[in-house]
Amino acid sequence: MTDAQRAFVILGHKAALTSDFTLNDLPGAGGRLDILARCVTSALCLSHGMRADTDVYLILQDQITVRFEGAHVKRLNPDERSTGALVKHALKALEAGRSRSTPGVTVARRGLADVLRELDEAGCTVHVLDEGGQDVRDASLAAPIAFVLSDHQDFSSSEATRLAAYGRLSLGPKVLQADPCIAIVHNELDRRALDWRHEPVRLIRS
Amino acid sequence: MTDAQRAFVILGHKAALTSDFTLNDLPGAGGRLDILARCVTSALCLSHGMRADTDVYLILQDQITVRFEGAHVKRLNPDERSTGALVKHALKALEAGRSRSTPGVTVARRGLADVLRELDEAGCTVHVLDEGGQDVRDASLAAPIAFVLSDHQDFSSSEATRLAAYGRLSLGPKVLQADPCIAIVHNELDRRALDWRHEPVRLIRS
Repeated sequence: MTDAQRAFVILGHKAALTSDFTLNDLPGAGGRLDILARCVTSALCLSHGMRADTDVYLILQDQITVRFEGAHVKRLNPDERSTGALVKHALKALEAGRSRSTPGVTVARRGLADVLRELDEAGCTVHVLDEGGQDVRDASLAAPIAFVLSDHQDFSSSEATRLAAYGRLSLGPKVLQADPCIAIVHNELDRRALDWRHEPVRLIRS
Repeated sequence: MTDAQRAFVILGHKAALTSDFTLNDLPGAGGRLDILARCVTSALCLSHGMRADTDVYLILQDQITVRFEGAHVKRLNPDERSTGALVKHALKALEAGRSRSTPGVTVARRGLADVLRELDEAGCTVHVLDEGGQDVRDASLAAPIAFVLSDHQDFSSSEATRLAAYGRLSLGPKVLQADPCIAIVHNELDRRALDWRHEPVRLIRS
Protein backbone atom coordinates (compact mmCIF):
# COMPACT_ATOMS: atom_id res chain seq x y z
CA MET A 1 0.00 0.00 0.00
CA THR A 2 1.22 3.45 -0.85
CA ASP A 3 -0.19 6.58 0.75
CA ALA A 4 -3.63 5.71 -0.58
CA GLN A 5 -6.49 5.78 1.89
CA ARG A 6 -8.54 3.13 0.12
CA ALA A 7 -7.51 -0.09 -1.56
CA PHE A 8 -9.41 -2.78 -3.42
CA VAL A 9 -7.92 -6.26 -3.78
CA ILE A 10 -9.56 -8.42 -6.43
CA LEU A 11 -8.83 -12.12 -6.76
CA GLY A 12 -8.80 -13.31 -10.37
CA HIS A 13 -9.04 -17.06 -10.22
CA LYS A 14 -8.65 -17.75 -13.92
CA ALA A 15 -6.81 -14.61 -15.04
CA ALA A 16 -4.09 -14.89 -17.65
CA LEU A 17 -0.57 -15.15 -16.26
CA THR A 18 1.22 -14.40 -19.51
CA SER A 19 0.89 -11.54 -21.98
CA ASP A 20 -0.05 -13.63 -24.99
CA PHE A 21 -3.83 -13.28 -24.70
CA THR A 22 -5.81 -11.32 -27.26
CA LEU A 23 -7.58 -8.12 -26.23
CA ASN A 24 -10.47 -9.27 -28.43
CA ASP A 25 -11.35 -11.98 -25.92
CA LEU A 26 -10.82 -10.73 -22.38
CA PRO A 27 -13.48 -13.08 -20.93
CA GLY A 28 -12.08 -16.24 -22.57
CA ALA A 29 -8.42 -15.85 -23.44
CA GLY A 30 -7.91 -13.31 -20.66
CA GLY A 31 -9.52 -15.57 -18.05
CA ARG A 32 -12.34 -13.17 -17.11
CA LEU A 33 -9.99 -10.24 -17.33
CA ASP A 34 -13.10 -8.26 -18.30
CA ILE A 35 -14.21 -8.47 -14.66
CA LEU A 36 -10.84 -7.29 -13.36
CA ALA A 37 -10.79 -4.45 -15.89
CA ARG A 38 -14.24 -3.25 -14.79
CA CYS A 39 -13.04 -3.40 -11.18
CA VAL A 40 -10.11 -1.11 -11.98
CA THR A 41 -12.45 1.35 -13.67
CA SER A 42 -14.95 1.22 -10.84
CA ALA A 43 -12.22 1.72 -8.24
CA LEU A 44 -10.29 4.53 -9.91
CA CYS A 45 -12.43 6.41 -12.45
CA LEU A 46 -14.69 9.28 -11.55
CA SER A 47 -16.85 10.95 -14.17
CA HIS A 48 -13.90 13.12 -15.08
CA GLY A 49 -10.64 12.27 -13.38
CA MET A 50 -9.10 9.64 -11.16
CA ARG A 51 -9.50 8.78 -7.52
CA ALA A 52 -6.01 9.73 -6.34
CA ASP A 53 -6.69 8.26 -2.89
CA THR A 54 -7.27 4.70 -4.13
CA ASP A 55 -5.06 1.75 -5.08
CA VAL A 56 -6.14 -1.46 -6.80
CA TYR A 57 -4.47 -4.84 -6.53
CA LEU A 58 -5.35 -7.42 -9.15
CA ILE A 59 -4.16 -10.81 -7.93
CA LEU A 60 -3.88 -13.22 -10.84
CA GLN A 61 -4.30 -16.85 -9.78
CA ASP A 62 -2.58 -16.07 -6.46
CA GLN A 63 0.72 -15.82 -8.33
CA ILE A 64 1.08 -12.38 -9.88
CA THR A 65 -0.12 -9.03 -8.55
CA VAL A 66 -0.68 -6.00 -10.76
CA ARG A 67 -1.08 -2.80 -8.74
CA PHE A 68 -2.70 0.38 -10.03
CA GLU A 69 -2.04 3.53 -8.00
CA GLY A 70 -4.76 6.11 -8.48
CA ALA A 71 -2.37 8.92 -7.60
CA HIS A 72 0.07 8.06 -10.37
CA VAL A 73 -1.73 6.04 -13.01
CA LYS A 74 -1.76 7.39 -16.55
CA ARG A 75 -3.25 6.13 -19.81
CA LEU A 76 -6.13 4.56 -17.90
CA ASN A 77 -9.36 4.87 -19.81
CA PRO A 78 -12.62 3.52 -18.44
CA ASP A 79 -13.22 0.92 -21.14
CA GLU A 80 -12.35 -2.73 -20.55
CA ARG A 81 -10.12 -3.14 -23.56
CA SER A 82 -7.71 -0.33 -22.70
CA THR A 83 -7.47 -1.52 -19.08
CA GLY A 84 -6.88 -5.05 -20.37
CA ALA A 85 -4.07 -3.59 -22.48
CA LEU A 86 -2.46 -2.12 -19.34
CA VAL A 87 -2.56 -5.56 -17.67
CA LYS A 88 -1.08 -7.13 -20.79
CA HIS A 89 1.65 -4.50 -20.77
CA ALA A 90 2.35 -5.21 -17.09
CA LEU A 91 2.69 -8.93 -17.79
CA LYS A 92 5.10 -8.12 -20.62
CA ALA A 93 7.15 -6.01 -18.21
CA LEU A 94 7.27 -8.92 -15.76
CA GLU A 95 8.35 -11.27 -18.53
CA ALA A 96 11.19 -8.83 -19.26
CA GLY A 97 12.24 -8.84 -15.61
CA ARG A 98 10.85 -5.41 -14.76
CA SER A 99 8.44 -4.47 -11.98
CA ARG A 100 7.45 -1.09 -13.39
CA SER A 101 5.08 -0.99 -16.31
CA THR A 102 3.16 2.06 -17.53
CA PRO A 103 3.03 5.02 -15.08
CA GLY A 104 1.34 4.07 -11.84
CA VAL A 105 1.24 0.37 -12.65
CA THR A 106 3.61 -2.12 -11.02
CA VAL A 107 3.77 -5.89 -11.20
CA ALA A 108 5.37 -8.61 -9.11
CA ARG A 109 5.24 -12.33 -8.47
CA ARG A 110 3.21 -11.99 -5.32
CA GLY A 111 0.03 -13.61 -4.10
CA LEU A 112 -2.72 -12.87 -1.61
CA ALA A 113 -0.55 -13.59 1.46
CA ASP A 114 2.04 -11.03 0.33
CA VAL A 115 -0.57 -8.35 -0.36
CA LEU A 116 -2.32 -8.92 2.96
CA ARG A 117 1.03 -8.65 4.76
CA GLU A 118 1.75 -5.36 3.00
CA LEU A 119 -1.67 -3.96 3.90
CA ASP A 120 -1.33 -5.09 7.52
CA GLU A 121 2.11 -3.52 7.81
CA ALA A 122 0.75 -0.27 6.38
CA GLY A 123 -1.77 -0.14 9.24
CA CYS A 124 -4.63 -0.71 6.87
CA THR A 125 -7.89 -2.22 8.14
CA VAL A 126 -8.82 -5.05 5.83
CA HIS A 127 -12.42 -6.08 5.16
CA VAL A 128 -13.70 -8.96 3.09
CA LEU A 129 -16.73 -8.31 0.90
CA ASP A 130 -18.86 -11.38 1.31
CA GLU A 131 -22.48 -12.34 1.76
CA GLY A 132 -23.54 -12.59 5.36
CA GLY A 133 -21.14 -9.96 6.66
CA GLN A 134 -22.01 -6.83 8.58
CA ASP A 135 -24.00 -4.19 6.71
CA VAL A 136 -21.48 -1.72 5.28
CA ARG A 137 -23.78 1.15 6.31
CA ASP A 138 -23.41 0.18 9.96
CA ALA A 139 -19.72 -0.62 9.90
CA SER A 140 -16.81 1.41 11.16
CA LEU A 141 -14.81 2.38 8.07
CA ALA A 142 -11.75 4.28 9.23
CA ALA A 143 -9.00 4.97 6.68
CA PRO A 144 -6.66 3.57 5.57
CA ILE A 145 -8.98 0.78 4.61
CA ALA A 146 -8.88 -2.13 2.17
CA PHE A 147 -11.52 -4.42 0.72
CA VAL A 148 -10.91 -7.89 -0.63
CA LEU A 149 -13.33 -9.35 -3.15
CA SER A 150 -13.49 -12.18 -5.58
CA ASP A 151 -14.16 -12.35 -9.30
CA HIS A 152 -16.95 -14.59 -10.65
CA GLN A 153 -15.87 -17.49 -8.45
CA ASP A 154 -16.23 -17.90 -4.71
CA PHE A 155 -13.18 -17.63 -2.51
CA SER A 156 -11.23 -20.89 -2.59
CA SER A 157 -10.94 -22.79 0.70
CA SER A 158 -7.33 -21.68 1.12
CA GLU A 159 -8.29 -18.07 0.46
CA ALA A 160 -11.21 -18.31 2.88
CA THR A 161 -8.85 -19.66 5.53
CA ARG A 162 -6.38 -16.87 4.92
CA LEU A 163 -9.14 -14.24 5.07
CA ALA A 164 -10.92 -15.66 8.12
CA ALA A 165 -9.17 -13.28 10.50
CA TYR A 166 -10.65 -10.21 8.83
CA GLY A 167 -14.08 -8.66 9.21
CA ARG A 168 -16.69 -9.38 6.59
CA LEU A 169 -18.92 -6.74 5.06
CA SER A 170 -22.10 -7.20 3.10
CA LEU A 171 -23.62 -4.59 0.80
CA GLY A 172 -27.21 -5.65 0.33
CA PRO A 173 -29.60 -8.51 -0.31
CA LYS A 174 -28.48 -9.35 -3.87
CA VAL A 175 -25.30 -11.11 -4.90
CA LEU A 176 -23.63 -8.66 -7.24
CA GLN A 177 -20.75 -8.68 -9.65
CA ALA A 178 -17.46 -7.35 -8.34
CA ASP A 179 -17.41 -3.90 -9.95
CA PRO A 180 -20.82 -2.70 -8.66
CA CYS A 181 -19.67 -3.80 -5.19
CA ILE A 182 -16.75 -1.40 -5.49
CA ALA A 183 -19.09 1.39 -6.62
CA ILE A 184 -21.32 0.87 -3.58
CA VAL A 185 -18.38 0.82 -1.15
CA HIS A 186 -16.93 4.01 -2.64
CA ASN A 187 -20.34 5.69 -2.35
CA GLU A 188 -20.56 4.83 1.34
CA LEU A 189 -17.01 6.08 1.97
CA ASP A 190 -17.59 9.26 -0.07
CA ARG A 191 -20.71 10.10 1.92
CA ARG A 192 -18.85 9.70 5.19
CA ALA A 193 -15.60 11.38 4.16
CA LEU A 194 -17.40 14.49 3.03
CA ASP A 195 -20.19 14.32 5.60
CA TRP A 196 -22.49 14.64 2.64
CA ARG A 197 -25.92 16.13 3.12
CA HIS A 198 -28.61 16.01 0.52
CA GLU A 199 -30.29 19.10 -0.80
CA PRO A 200 -33.68 20.00 0.63
CA VAL A 201 -36.55 18.04 -0.85
CA ARG A 202 -37.23 19.43 -4.27
CA LEU A 203 -39.05 16.90 -6.38
CA ILE A 204 -40.03 19.31 -9.11
CA ARG A 205 -37.36 21.49 -10.63
CA SER A 206 -38.67 24.98 -11.22
CA MET B 1 -42.03 -0.06 -20.59
CA THR B 2 -43.02 -3.67 -20.27
CA ASP B 3 -44.02 -5.21 -16.96
CA ALA B 4 -40.63 -4.31 -15.53
CA GLN B 5 -40.63 -2.53 -12.18
CA ARG B 6 -37.40 -0.63 -12.81
CA ALA B 7 -36.08 1.05 -15.92
CA PHE B 8 -32.88 2.90 -16.72
CA VAL B 9 -32.76 5.34 -19.64
CA ILE B 10 -29.26 6.29 -20.78
CA LEU B 11 -28.63 9.10 -23.22
CA GLY B 12 -25.73 8.39 -25.58
CA HIS B 13 -24.81 11.71 -27.12
CA LYS B 14 -22.19 10.43 -29.54
CA ALA B 15 -23.30 6.83 -29.95
CA ALA B 16 -23.07 5.18 -33.35
CA LEU B 17 -26.29 5.23 -35.36
CA THR B 18 -25.23 2.64 -37.90
CA SER B 19 -23.89 -0.87 -37.50
CA ASP B 20 -20.60 -0.31 -39.30
CA PHE B 21 -18.46 0.41 -36.23
CA THR B 22 -15.77 -2.02 -35.10
CA LEU B 23 -16.14 -3.84 -31.79
CA ASN B 24 -12.40 -3.24 -31.32
CA ASP B 25 -13.03 0.45 -30.71
CA LEU B 26 -16.26 0.96 -28.77
CA PRO B 27 -15.06 4.26 -27.23
CA GLY B 28 -14.04 5.84 -30.54
CA ALA B 29 -15.83 4.26 -33.49
CA GLY B 30 -18.79 3.30 -31.29
CA GLY B 31 -19.14 6.83 -29.89
CA ARG B 32 -18.55 5.89 -26.23
CA LEU B 33 -20.60 2.76 -26.66
CA ASP B 34 -18.34 1.34 -23.94
CA ILE B 35 -20.25 3.51 -21.45
CA LEU B 36 -23.64 2.34 -22.69
CA ALA B 37 -22.49 -1.28 -22.63
CA ARG B 38 -21.36 -0.97 -19.01
CA CYS B 39 -24.73 0.57 -18.18
CA VAL B 40 -26.57 -2.42 -19.61
CA THR B 41 -24.41 -4.78 -17.56
CA SER B 42 -24.82 -2.72 -14.41
CA ALA B 43 -28.59 -2.55 -14.90
CA LEU B 44 -29.27 -6.19 -15.80
CA CYS B 45 -26.49 -8.48 -14.59
CA LEU B 46 -26.35 -9.96 -11.13
CA SER B 47 -23.44 -12.13 -10.04
CA HIS B 48 -25.17 -15.09 -11.64
CA GLY B 49 -28.31 -14.32 -13.57
CA MET B 50 -30.31 -11.38 -14.85
CA ARG B 51 -32.52 -8.84 -13.18
CA ALA B 52 -35.83 -9.90 -14.69
CA ASP B 53 -37.57 -6.85 -13.20
CA THR B 54 -35.47 -4.28 -15.07
CA ASP B 55 -35.52 -2.75 -18.56
CA VAL B 56 -32.82 -0.59 -20.14
CA TYR B 57 -33.31 2.02 -22.84
CA LEU B 58 -30.21 3.18 -24.71
CA ILE B 59 -31.09 6.35 -26.59
CA LEU B 60 -28.58 6.96 -29.36
CA GLN B 61 -28.25 10.64 -30.25
CA ASP B 62 -31.94 11.15 -29.52
CA GLN B 63 -32.76 9.28 -32.72
CA ILE B 64 -32.66 5.55 -32.11
CA THR B 65 -33.64 3.62 -28.98
CA VAL B 66 -32.38 0.12 -28.23
CA ARG B 67 -34.33 -1.54 -25.43
CA PHE B 68 -33.09 -4.47 -23.36
CA GLU B 69 -35.72 -6.33 -21.35
CA GLY B 70 -34.23 -8.13 -18.37
CA ALA B 71 -37.07 -10.65 -18.36
CA HIS B 72 -36.42 -11.80 -21.89
CA VAL B 73 -32.86 -10.91 -22.85
CA LYS B 74 -30.58 -13.74 -23.92
CA ARG B 75 -26.95 -13.87 -25.02
CA LEU B 76 -26.13 -10.96 -22.74
CA ASN B 77 -22.71 -11.39 -21.16
CA PRO B 78 -21.31 -8.83 -18.77
CA ASP B 79 -18.33 -7.77 -20.88
CA GLU B 80 -18.49 -4.61 -22.96
CA ARG B 81 -17.61 -6.20 -26.26
CA SER B 82 -20.44 -8.73 -26.26
CA THR B 83 -22.96 -6.06 -25.23
CA GLY B 84 -21.58 -3.82 -27.97
CA ALA B 85 -22.20 -6.70 -30.36
CA LEU B 86 -25.86 -6.83 -29.30
CA VAL B 87 -26.21 -3.11 -30.03
CA LYS B 88 -24.51 -3.59 -33.39
CA HIS B 89 -26.90 -6.45 -34.13
CA ALA B 90 -29.88 -4.27 -33.18
CA LEU B 91 -28.71 -1.52 -35.54
CA LYS B 92 -28.37 -4.12 -38.29
CA ALA B 93 -31.94 -5.23 -37.62
CA LEU B 94 -33.14 -1.63 -37.89
CA GLU B 95 -31.27 -1.20 -41.14
CA ALA B 96 -33.11 -4.28 -42.41
CA GLY B 97 -36.44 -2.78 -41.37
CA ARG B 98 -36.98 -4.96 -38.33
CA SER B 99 -37.69 -3.88 -34.76
CA ARG B 100 -36.82 -7.19 -33.13
CA SER B 101 -33.18 -8.11 -32.78
CA THR B 102 -31.77 -10.82 -30.53
CA PRO B 103 -34.16 -12.16 -27.83
CA GLY B 104 -35.23 -9.42 -25.44
CA VAL B 105 -33.69 -6.64 -27.54
CA THR B 106 -35.82 -4.30 -29.65
CA VAL B 107 -34.92 -1.23 -31.64
CA ALA B 108 -36.84 1.71 -33.09
CA ARG B 109 -36.38 5.20 -34.45
CA ARG B 110 -37.45 6.88 -31.24
CA GLY B 111 -35.92 9.57 -29.11
CA LEU B 112 -36.14 10.78 -25.52
CA ALA B 113 -39.61 12.33 -25.93
CA ASP B 114 -41.05 9.01 -27.16
CA VAL B 115 -39.49 7.03 -24.33
CA LEU B 116 -40.66 9.49 -21.68
CA ARG B 117 -44.19 9.34 -23.10
CA GLU B 118 -44.13 5.54 -22.94
CA LEU B 119 -42.92 5.58 -19.35
CA ASP B 120 -45.50 8.17 -18.34
CA GLU B 121 -48.31 6.18 -19.96
CA ALA B 122 -47.16 3.06 -18.13
CA GLY B 123 -47.65 4.89 -14.84
CA CYS B 124 -43.94 4.92 -14.18
CA THR B 125 -42.43 7.55 -11.89
CA VAL B 126 -39.48 9.07 -13.69
CA HIS B 127 -36.46 10.48 -11.88
CA VAL B 128 -33.44 12.23 -13.34
CA LEU B 129 -30.04 11.35 -11.89
CA ASP B 130 -28.25 14.63 -11.59
CA GLU B 131 -26.05 16.51 -9.17
CA GLY B 132 -27.93 18.68 -6.74
CA GLY B 133 -31.03 16.50 -6.62
CA GLN B 134 -32.61 14.97 -3.57
CA ASP B 135 -30.58 12.31 -1.76
CA VAL B 136 -31.71 8.94 -3.13
CA ARG B 137 -31.66 7.52 0.42
CA ASP B 138 -34.33 9.99 1.47
CA ALA B 139 -36.49 9.78 -1.64
CA SER B 140 -39.75 7.98 -2.17
CA LEU B 141 -39.00 5.24 -4.69
CA ALA B 142 -42.26 3.44 -5.45
CA ALA B 143 -42.33 1.02 -8.36
CA PRO B 144 -42.70 1.14 -11.30
CA ILE B 145 -39.84 3.58 -11.41
CA ALA B 146 -37.45 4.87 -14.06
CA PHE B 147 -34.17 6.74 -13.93
CA VAL B 148 -32.76 8.91 -16.69
CA LEU B 149 -29.03 9.51 -16.84
CA SER B 150 -26.48 10.81 -19.27
CA ASP B 151 -23.29 9.33 -20.67
CA HIS B 152 -19.99 11.24 -20.36
CA GLN B 153 -21.62 14.49 -21.46
CA ASP B 154 -24.02 16.70 -19.55
CA PHE B 155 -27.65 16.81 -20.58
CA SER B 156 -28.09 19.08 -23.58
CA SER B 157 -30.23 22.18 -23.08
CA SER B 158 -33.13 20.63 -24.99
CA GLU B 159 -32.86 17.45 -22.89
CA ALA B 160 -32.70 19.49 -19.70
CA THR B 161 -35.84 21.34 -20.75
CA ARG B 162 -37.63 18.11 -21.53
CA LEU B 163 -36.57 16.60 -18.18
CA ALA B 164 -37.33 19.65 -16.06
CA ALA B 165 -40.74 18.35 -15.04
CA TYR B 166 -39.29 15.31 -13.31
CA GLY B 167 -37.73 14.98 -9.90
CA ARG B 168 -33.98 14.94 -9.64
CA LEU B 169 -32.05 12.49 -7.50
CA SER B 170 -28.46 12.70 -6.36
CA LEU B 171 -26.42 9.74 -5.15
CA GLY B 172 -23.53 11.27 -3.24
CA PRO B 173 -20.85 13.94 -3.19
CA LYS B 174 -18.77 12.69 -6.13
CA VAL B 175 -19.66 12.97 -9.80
CA LEU B 176 -19.59 9.38 -11.01
CA GLN B 177 -19.68 7.59 -14.31
CA ALA B 178 -23.05 6.30 -15.42
CA ASP B 179 -22.70 2.60 -14.62
CA PRO B 180 -21.73 2.99 -10.94
CA CYS B 181 -24.76 5.30 -10.59
CA ILE B 182 -26.98 2.44 -11.73
CA ALA B 183 -25.29 0.08 -9.25
CA ILE B 184 -25.95 2.49 -6.38
CA VAL B 185 -29.61 3.01 -7.35
CA HIS B 186 -30.20 -0.75 -7.63
CA ASN B 187 -28.62 -1.24 -4.20
CA GLU B 188 -30.97 1.30 -2.63
CA LEU B 189 -33.99 -0.30 -4.31
CA ASP B 190 -32.87 -3.83 -3.39
CA ARG B 191 -32.52 -2.87 0.25
CA ARG B 192 -36.01 -1.42 0.34
CA ALA B 193 -37.74 -4.09 -1.74
CA LEU B 194 -36.47 -6.84 0.50
CA ASP B 195 -36.51 -4.83 3.70
CA TRP B 196 -32.96 -5.96 4.09
CA ARG B 197 -31.45 -6.16 7.53
CA HIS B 198 -27.79 -6.64 8.20
CA GLU B 199 -26.47 -9.48 10.27
CA PRO B 200 -25.55 -8.76 13.87
CA VAL B 201 -22.17 -7.11 14.30
CA ARG B 202 -19.52 -9.74 13.78
CA LEU B 203 -16.26 -8.13 12.87
CA ILE B 204 -14.15 -11.22 13.38
CA ARG B 205 -15.25 -14.44 11.79
CA SER B 206 -14.76 -17.36 14.16
